[in-house]
Amino acid sequence: MSIDALQERIRKLKNPVMLGLDPYLPILPPHIVKDAYAAHGQTVQGAAEAYYRFCTELLDRLCGLVPAVKLQSACFEGLGADGIAKMQAISRYAKERGYYVLIDSMRGDVGSVAEIYAQAMFGTVPVGETAHKLYECDALTVNGYLGSDGIKPFLPYCKHEGKNIFMLLKTSNKSSREVQDLLSGDRVVYTAMADLAMRWSDGLFGKYGYSELGAVVGATFPQTMKLLREKYDRLFFLVPGYGAQGGTAKNVQFAFDRFGHGAIISASRSIICAWQKEGSDGTDYLDFAYQAAEKMKNDISKYVVIL
Amino acid sequence: MSIDALQERIRKLKNPVMLGLDPYLPILPPHIVKDAYAAHGQTVQGAAEAYYRFCTELLDRLCGLVPAVKLQSACFEGLGADGIAKMQAISRYAKERGYYVLIDSMRGDVGSVAEIYAQAMFGTVPVGETAHKLYECDALTVNGYLGSDGIKPFLPYCKHEGKNIFMLLKTSNKSSREVQDLLSGDRVVYTAMADLAMRWSDGLFGKYGYSELGAVVGATFPQTMKLLREKYDRLFFLVPGYGAQGGTAKNVQFAFDRFGHGAIISASRSIICAWQKEGSDGTDYLDFAYQAAEKMKNDISKYVVIL
Repeated sequence: MSIDALQERIRKLKNPVMLGLDPYLPILPPHIVKDAYAAHGQTVQGAAEAYYRFCTELLDRLCGLVPAVKLQSACFEGLGADGIAKMQAISRYAKERGYYVLIDSMRGDVGSVAEIYAQAMFGTVPVGETAHKLYECDALTVNGYLGSDGIKPFLPYCKHEGKNIFMLLKTSNKSSREVQDLLSGDRVVYTAMADLAMRWSDGLFGKYGYSELGAVVGATFPQTMKLLREKYDRLFFLVPGYGAQGGTAKNVQFAFDRFGHGAIISASRSIICAWQKEGSDGTDYLDFAYQAAEKMKNDISKYVVIL
Repeated sequence: MSIDALQERIRKLKNPVMLGLDPYLPILPPHIVKDAYAAHGQTVQGAAEAYYRFCTELLDRLCGLVPAVKLQSACFEGLGADGIAKMQAISRYAKERGYYVLIDSMRGDVGSVAEIYAQAMFGTVPVGETAHKLYECDALTVNGYLGSDGIKPFLPYCKHEGKNIFMLLKTSNKSSREVQDLLSGDRVVYTAMADLAMRWSDGLFGKYGYSELGAVVGATFPQTMKLLREKYDRLFFLVPGYGAQGGTAKNVQFAFDRFGHGAIISASRSIICAWQKEGSDGTDYLDFAYQAAEKMKNDISKYVVIL
């Protein structure tokens, strides 16, 4: 897609919620795990099949409600090759259903290594005279600690292929202050990172004014978010930390501009594990997920009107 | 292993060189690629088979010369599930031949997600009543930008399982200064990161005085390396950037303590692509790799005596 297409999808559905898929055996509904073991045994492949069913059923159910999905790469990497095969398949599945697909891998490498990675995620892998598409991926999270050399390999895809990257600025976890909040002159590390994001955004602004290079800003620091929104009014924000981590609708209102644009709010556990709170046996987990996602949309709409 | 075991292996072989395996089709000897395509077609699986042959032949040839190996995760991720399957297999292959195995994935995530990742790389993946070992991995590179929450999930494995993590402090690429060299009070970001590494090392020091939590310090900044070695004399250094990136034996001498301990120097392209410089057809790439690795060992030994 592109940052414009993401914004248009959010406006069409009047919903800035991103579904976070962080599959992990202990949080899966028991019937899904049981069926997978019955078919494949207690194997890594069986676990991967359970992930696939869980994620694709959620994608089917929330299609039309939620504009975008975030795949947590580490969860799939946690099952090795079987997990990665399913991450590839789920990215394609999500794309076919119209979702904007972000893969949350927080990569940070440099030079040819970053190029190989960018090509695999955003482009096609050349093998002899053939080319192979592994993923359907609109966006990646990236870690800018290594500087330009780690970011530049992704920028041609942002400029020419409608892809996006979201740089970590201020993450939602409590200890993010240890490095990210270090003072440096009249800046802190995360504003220095934002300044770099603006520098690298040269030539990458879409028609609604936002850069194809966005930023990750945690929902758990509303004042920081407010300051960043004011100062960096051309960086689209990906906001994790809603729900289970403590971010609220009231907090995340500051991520948006006065038109209700410029941000998407991701939530994983509060949606995909919603069934666990209610004494459900998990067979109705899709209903709980739908209700949780709808409630999140409604809660945010009390503070943010998307024009 | 453990940081002590790594040090002992380096001392035994009198060699602080780490073989970097960054496979990528354009750098593979043509006969390997040709054979793989003949067997598997021009497919992603064919490419992965070529990677596997290339890496395992190098591991066989350099066994007994080089104590440790670094697998560049992004190269394998660049082939999706097929690449990851081979990274798992190559880690086991390397382990069987006695190498200390580092997987260079530069991860930085938090909480349960980091725990899932740490478990998959260092431990076993629980599936029902079974447990599955995906990798034989002694060490990982990690990115500390997210603070304690991103590092702590790895520490129990460092303390109890003989595993190591190497935190990025000052990387070898030119633009590393953009973030890592930002001044903050009387520190820069990378020394602040080193201070955190020391704080997290509490209880993790081996019998030779080095922490199980090491640091990545690029070979391309010798003065920085010297200062870091003096100030952080209990952090073991993993030093990338030798050879192709411009680091020299003269530069890397500063990574070692006065006993020639406390550092390992990684090189990838200058060893695995050594055949490309000489007008070879690639069939003798193993000889070139061996000679390059031996030369690197000898060059370093002019400046560093390992006691």
